[in-house]
Amino acid sequence: MTAINTEQIKKLRELTGAGVLDAKRTLEEFNGDFDKALAILKEKGMKAAEKKAERVAKQGLIETYVHGGGKLGVMVEVNCETDFVAALAEFRELVHNIALQIAATKPEYVSVEDIAPAVIEEKKKMFTEAALAEGKPAHIVEKIVNGKLEAYYKEACLLRQPFIRDDQQTIQDLIQATIAKVGENIVVKRFVRYELGA
Amino acid sequence: MTAINTEQIKKLRELTGAGVLDAKRTLEEFNGDFDKALAILKEKGMKAAEKKAERVAKQGLIETYVHGGGKLGVMVEVNCETDFVAALAEFRELVHNIALQIAATKPEYVSVEDIAPAVIEEKKKMFTEAALAEGKPAHIVEKIVNGKLEAYYKEACLLRQPFIRDDQQTIQDLIQATIAKVGENIVVKRFVRYELGA
Repeated sequence: MTAINTEQIKKLRELTGAGVLDAKRTLEEFNGDFDKALAILKEKGMKAAEKKAERVAKQGLIETYVHGGGKLGVMVEVNCETDFVAALAEFRELVHNIALQIAATKPEYVSVEDIAPAVIEEKKKMFTEAALAEGKPAHIVEKIVNGKLEAYYKEACLLRQPFIRDDQQTIQDLIQATIAKVGENIVVKRFVRYELGA
Repeated sequence: MTAINTEQIKKLRELTGAGVLDAKRTLEEFNGDFDKALAILKEKGMKAAEKKAERVAKQGLIETYVHGGGKLGVMVEVNCETDFVAALAEFRELVHNIALQIAATKPEYVSVEDIAPAVIEEKKKMFTEAALAEGKPAHIVEKIVNGKLEAYYKEACLLRQPFIRDDQQTIQDLIQATIAKVGENIVVKRFVRYELGA
């Protein structure tokens, strides 16, 4: 039996969201080979997520936007509760605006919740070290770090971004406004953005 | 001398991208046996494509295809070497056909090389256990496992799939025929496929 490293288990959980036992058993199955265990847990996690997704909102719209004659492309899925709302002009306009936003601003995530905890920890560490290196007093470092973290979220997370066509609104505001108009929950489920040769 | 059917020449050219003379001579060489001529021309095309495969392909096209009024979406990036080829009808038709293929057949990977080794090992293990459980003799288990693995690749990998509009060709064949026509390396870089609520 290979001795399983607790650091490996922790890392696997961060990367896949697997339980402690599941991560440990998979590592043991592959004699401590981290990359193999990671690939298997990811595949399992993907299947579990697919099952859960069936229970939530199933209606909505998949929209694409291609720019520059095929040099840039965006695809986004936005869910609502009924076919009826999916066909409304207000909903379609929202989805189109979100596609344009993604093309223009290159977000990495839908929401802050989609950032892996390890990534946030890494950012915090980086911002803290930078603040200390600049000689900031310890009692205001936390405040500085939180400010930089918020700025990072505003750039990386679609829902936190200011809307390109009206920077007084965030995309979250835009969605909430549409929810109020159509009377149904609306969720940006996922998006992807390709740049040619990038 | 066998009379060579112009329909056969046309079909061979479509399937392999070979020139008229090349298609005609190969058919004559095999006394009009279409399948043999096809196999030889495919092999020739493969070798020519391999030579081009090392060339950098950074131009091309990002194409999207949306079906069912927003219920299914596909985005694909296909690279070629120059802007000039990216604008050719032959290249654009290829990219469009690939997008339709992905929409229809739901591949998981571009090529076999994109499957994580751990996933292939897991499949092998599963197929082996199934064959042994069925009481297959040990000396043919490997053969059965390889057969099942090939079947899995044909389903999961875009390049191995039979083309939906002509199942005599794989997508790889279709790409090679286009490479022969346009004279540049062509690579499917990445794709993504969304199904509403899935």
